[in-house]
Amino acid sequence: MNTNVRISLPAVCFVWQIAMVILFGVFIRYDEESDVKLWLRFKQEHNITSDIDNDFYFRYPSFQDVHVMIFVGFGFLMTFLKRYSFGGVGFNFLIASFGLQWALLMQGWFHSLDLETGKISIGVESLINADFCCAGSLIAFGALLGKVSPVQLMVVTLFGITLFAVEEFIILSLLHCRDAGGSMVIHAFGGYYGLAISWVLYRPNLHLSKRLNGSVYHSDVFAMIGTLFLWMFWPSFNSAITDHGDGQHRAAINTYIALASCVLTTVAISSMSQKKGKLDMVHIQNATLAGGVAMGTAAEFMITPYGSLIVGFCCGIISTFGYLFPFLERALKLQDTCGVHNLHAVPGMLGGFIGAIVAAAATEEVYGREGLIRVFDFTGSFANRSVGTQGGFQAAGTCVSIAFGLVGGVIVGFILRFPIWGDPADDNCYDDEVYWEVNEKQKKHFYHCRLTFQISDINEFLSLSGSRG
Amino acid sequence: MNTNVRISLPAVCFVWQIAMVILFGVFIRYDEESDVKLWLRFKQEHNITSDIDNDFYFRYPSFQDVHVMIFVGFGFLMTFLKRYSFGGVGFNFLIASFGLQWALLMQGWFHSLDLETGKISIGVESLINADFCCAGSLIAFGALLGKVSPVQLMVVTLFGITLFAVEEFIILSLLHCRDAGGSMVIHAFGGYYGLAISWVLYRPNLHLSKRLNGSVYHSDVFAMIGTLFLWMFWPSFNSAITDHGDGQHRAAINTYIALASCVLTTVAISSMSQKKGKLDMVHIQNATLAGGVAMGTAAEFMITPYGSLIVGFCCGIISTFGYLFPFLERALKLQDTCGVHNLHAVPGMLGGFIGAIVAAAATEEVYGREGLIRVFDFTGSFANRSVGTQGGFQAAGTCVSIAFGLVGGVIVGFILRFPIWGDPADDNCYDDEVYWEVNEKQKKHFYHCRLTFQISDINEFLSLSGSRG
Amino acid sequence: MNTNVRISLPAVCFVWQIAMVILFGVFIRYDEESDVKLWLRFKQEHNITSDIDNDFYFRYPSFQDVHVMIFVGFGFLMTFLKRYSFGGVGFNFLIASFGLQWALLMQGWFHSLDLETGKISIGVESLINADFCCAGSLIAFGALLGKVSPVQLMVVTLFGITLFAVEEFIILSLLHCRDAGGSMVIHAFGGYYGLAISWVLYRPNLHLSKRLNGSVYHSDVFAMIGTLFLWMFWPSFNSAITDHGDGQHRAAINTYIALASCVLTTVAISSMSQKKGKLDMVHIQNATLAGGVAMGTAAEFMITPYGSLIVGFCCGIISTFGYLFPFLERALKLQDTCGVHNLHAVPGMLGGFIGAIVAAAATEEVYGREGLIRVFDFTGSFANRSVGTQGGFQAAGTCVSIAFGLVGGVIVGFILRFPIWGDPADDNCYDDEVYWEVNEKQKKHFYHCRLTFQISDINEFLSLSGSRG
Repeated sequence: MNTNVRISLPAVCFVWQIAMVILFGVFIRYDEESDVKLWLRFKQEHNITSDIDNDFYFRYPSFQDVHVMIFVGFGFLMTFLKRYSFGGVGFNFLIASFGLQWALLMQGWFHSLDLETGKISIGVESLINADFCCAGSLIAFGALLGKVSPVQLMVVTLFGITLFAVEEFIILSLLHCRDAGGSMVIHAFGGYYGLAISWVLYRPNLHLSKRLNGSVYHSDVFAMIGTLFLWMFWPSFNSAITDHGDGQHRAAINTYIALASCVLTTVAISSMSQKKGKLDMVHIQNATLAGGVAMGTAAEFMITPYGSLIVGFCCGIISTFGYLFPFLERALKLQDTCGVHNLHAVPGMLGGFIGAIVAAAATEEVYGREGLIRVFDFTGSFANRSVGTQGGFQAAGTCVSIAFGLVGGVIVGFILRFPIWGDPADDNCYDDEVYWEVNEKQKKHFYHCRLTFQISDINEFLSLSGSRG
Repeated sequence: MNTNVRISLPAVCFVWQIAMVILFGVFIRYDEESDVKLWLRFKQEHNITSDIDNDFYFRYPSFQDVHVMIFVGFGFLMTFLKRYSFGGVGFNFLIASFGLQWALLMQGWFHSLDLETGKISIGVESLINADFCCAGSLIAFGALLGKVSPVQLMVVTLFGITLFAVEEFIILSLLHCRDAGGSMVIHAFGGYYGLAISWVLYRPNLHLSKRLNGSVYHSDVFAMIGTLFLWMFWPSFNSAITDHGDGQHRAAINTYIALASCVLTTVAISSMSQKKGKLDMVHIQNATLAGGVAMGTAAEFMITPYGSLIVGFCCGIISTFGYLFPFLERALKLQDTCGVHNLHAVPGMLGGFIGAIVAAAATEEVYGREGLIRVFDFTGSFANRSVGTQGGFQAAGTCVSIAFGLVGGVIVGFILRFPIWGDPADDNCYDDEVYWEVNEKQKKHFYHCRLTFQISDINEFLSLSGSRG
Repeated sequence: MNTNVRISLPAVCFVWQIAMVILFGVFIRYDEESDVKLWLRFKQEHNITSDIDNDFYFRYPSFQDVHVMIFVGFGFLMTFLKRYSFGGVGFNFLIASFGLQWALLMQGWFHSLDLETGKISIGVESLINADFCCAGSLIAFGALLGKVSPVQLMVVTLFGITLFAVEEFIILSLLHCRDAGGSMVIHAFGGYYGLAISWVLYRPNLHLSKRLNGSVYHSDVFAMIGTLFLWMFWPSFNSAITDHGDGQHRAAINTYIALASCVLTTVAISSMSQKKGKLDMVHIQNATLAGGVAMGTAAEFMITPYGSLIVGFCCGIISTFGYLFPFLERALKLQDTCGVHNLHAVPGMLGGFIGAIVAAAATEEVYGREGLIRVFDFTGSFANRSVGTQGGFQAAGTCVSIAFGLVGGVIVGFILRFPIWGDPADDNCYDDEVYWEVNEKQKKHFYHCRLTFQISDINEFLSLSGSRG
């Protein structure tokens, strides 16, 4: 196969980046909290005396945490392969950087286009949403890791962001669901999107690259950087765009608690699954995060601290079992490099349904009348919606996100099967040398090390060379 | 020795996690700044017009920094051993995740239990305190690194958190000490707790694992990730729960300054100690942090910027000397893997006494009358306490924390000597293979590399094989 | 050459640190937002009801991001060399810790010395500025990496901070330029300062260390930690000290957008430059950051989102071309280890001129009258300055910063040529063993690995040993 991307990759980067410049020029403007003229007017009109009331101070710390999750969290989580660390962290960097620009546009058209002026106003909340939007495509990347070319990843991202913006509009605006941390719109969608693509791109001879589909000691430590930054900042992820005040506060607490409990059940199942009770790094790196995924919808609700603990408890178990019994791979002939089915798709789907249940169970006694309106945004044309109805719509929203992921993924998968994208041969997957300059000496060292695996101890070795002599 | 933890580890994780779910269900509720109904009422009652006055916006950025210190800081600092990086970062992850849940309960019972309703209210400050509480046990882990099983670590944490909550109650509530960054309650306690356990668990034949008790080049670089995140975020650690406004501001400045000065004296002593003036990574990784430990109590006081510089100056020297002359190991037969005596115990104790001196030296001229009340919380039944008395109580508090650490550690140490915990044999310490699945090929590569250390150059090697032939 | 720094390094550290203690004692005090007495009075005088109006809450999250950039960002970016990772991250730690203390003093004398009391007041903004000031010297370190001793680096920092404070005073105070993110005062100055030093210290026989002037697989992954933390937190760098409210908000948005676009053009040029379209880690690690450098001046202006995209677009191309065609090295005999010419000097200079153009193009229509005054600080003796004049001064400021860098660098370079500083021999550069204790076994392993590069496969090897036999 021809893996030369010297024309296609620069072409895609340049054409799309130029398109971004033009579209930003036509559409994107600062919003009233980041434009100097508008902010001064806004302060005057709303009798605001202190700049601290600018949304920047409510959301910027959370934005930076989310930003770290997208670039270091997702990026380093994907460095676990012994010879695909450059690709893991580097391609993640590339597609997230493209994706967030396209997301600002797509989400802007759907959510904040001023029909009078034809302009999109952006502020710090738009940046957070753009990062969120990228997360869907980065999750899909996890299922495809090592098996596709960077050009294909750019295509996955272009369509992924587009599909995301549409399903998000349907779920959040039309169905009026609440999904601040994106269990549905980010994780369930992104997971199934990636899985559907991977299913279409099934490689029957992938075992030819088996030697590279695994970790070495230090690549597993690198991956823990990703795991921990995702784990630590997940409370910021789930609270970044929730209501000011109690909303952000509560979402952070709930996510913090759910994640802590998830770690313990992950360790328990991981240890039980092995003859001598040894832990498996794959589980620790991934399943410990499932609690955060599953709290994406319910974190801002009054799920109660022990409710959060229970969610984390169950998701740690379910996700670890997913890694232990990769039935998808066998039953569906689906190759899922990072196990996004266990980490994102299933916990995301569960998170959607948990959100539905918690919403339906909301009472005026717990939330107060004003509180119900505040949390579920029962205003405007939704002023008369009951919590039961809201629960039903939340469940429907989850199904919509899965449907978008599956159908969109299959279509994109078929697009990616055209033989023009420079994807690697079956015996060349999971290898950085296909798309990265790797130092010549390193290569020799690496092959030498593989070579020496054959020789188990020095006596055998010397007797062998001796007998030759 | 039987290091199989397949039953004990899952059992401990499940039983304790289920206990957490039940206890959280009975006791833990959102506080008035994270509960939607209570926050709306609170705003109304206190005439608060902006959600920015929610404590979330005062403390959340600091909370996230502290969270990074606990999981990435402590975790990666302990990856320095050549073959115990999984254990260092992974067990840290496990015990901190359990510890923070138990801490929310223990600290809640002592500090924020509403006696009328029987409930504990939690908010962002509770999360910071729970992370702090874990730090004590993680410090103890540093002394035990590589020599205990994960089940033992869970026991260390269970008792560590419990002892912490009690000594903290005595020191902060009964003695009315100030200790925002925890020189006394976290570092002195945690350090002596770990050392006492390690003393009881003394292994006379630990030299059998000597080959693994050291670093390799890249494991030292990994450890620098931990060092730097601890060092950078220490100003947040010491300011996270201090007074709003000037209190947080001043604590951050003082800690920043002390840490900077600590780096220079650490480098100076490290260089002086070696024949050719070469630096030792162990000192740079650890002693540079001693200034932050020693500012834990005094950071919120008016210690003045040059006072902070002097504290950092002295602690860098003292801590580095501790690493150069590990007299404890020889004199007391005490094995301290990470040198917590030099990094936490001694600087923590010094920090307690520095705090006592600075408190006793406080004057109305510097603080103002209102300022003295604000900084030392001379309200209620402590309204008439003088700064001299306060200094005395601060010193007494330091002694209490050390006593709790030593006595508690000895008791826990004896509990850990029961032969049921699956701890490693003397020739099997510092080795991830005991509790972690490690890829087979990696093992061979590793042994091969050790093997080749014997062969100093190719000529000798070829002549050897030649003579055999 | 004698590389023993056992006397000089501790001497420099101790003498300078003691000087810092004395000077801090004489000059440095808390400002009115971090001193308890002054803050209580300030609140009363200004009718401030909430502590949230303390500058701490406007700037501390950004400060911590900047702090991470200085220590982890710069530090890990310089771990890319195969055997100089300790030096990269460790010396960065040392000189930044010294530099920030000296910066607090130098910047204090120039900007916040109270002539009545003779005291300098510091607060969180001073800490950010001190970190910024260090950045100049750390950039210079990048050009010198591996070729100088730690004592020389301390000298580079001492003079670097001093020169910085003077040029900053001229540019910001006398010329009244705006340069919140430091395109001019930090990047152009720091870049040319380092390059001029490196030019004076030219080593004709540096090729003797060629074997060590390169990366290995995992050192490249470590460097990506530095790259990503710089990239992610650059919006905080450029917005940390801009105006409260819209100023910080806008600067963060502009930088975020410019950096995203920079990644795509870097990838495009990197791929185009290689026969098979493979990417080069050097470009990804460095040129992706050029967009942030170039936005240092203009980020706070109303450059518009698409203007930011264009800046990133162009700088990604220019910077990557710089790495592809290192004409400086050939034409000027200048050795620039990290390529700071391409990453800091040129993009910084461009950033200065971009700032000048955007300033000159400012209109009352876009900014509003009040907005123009707010953004360009047209108050006091500058109340009547026009935007055109401002643009001219911005351009002049850029030239001043470059001149300071070049002239200062040449002078410091000649000071560093005295044969007393313990710098490494030409065949000993880029090697941690000169200044760091490196485990003996590791050394052998390392040489063994280099040795085995000679042997391309086992057959050849066995036949060789066989023939000997």
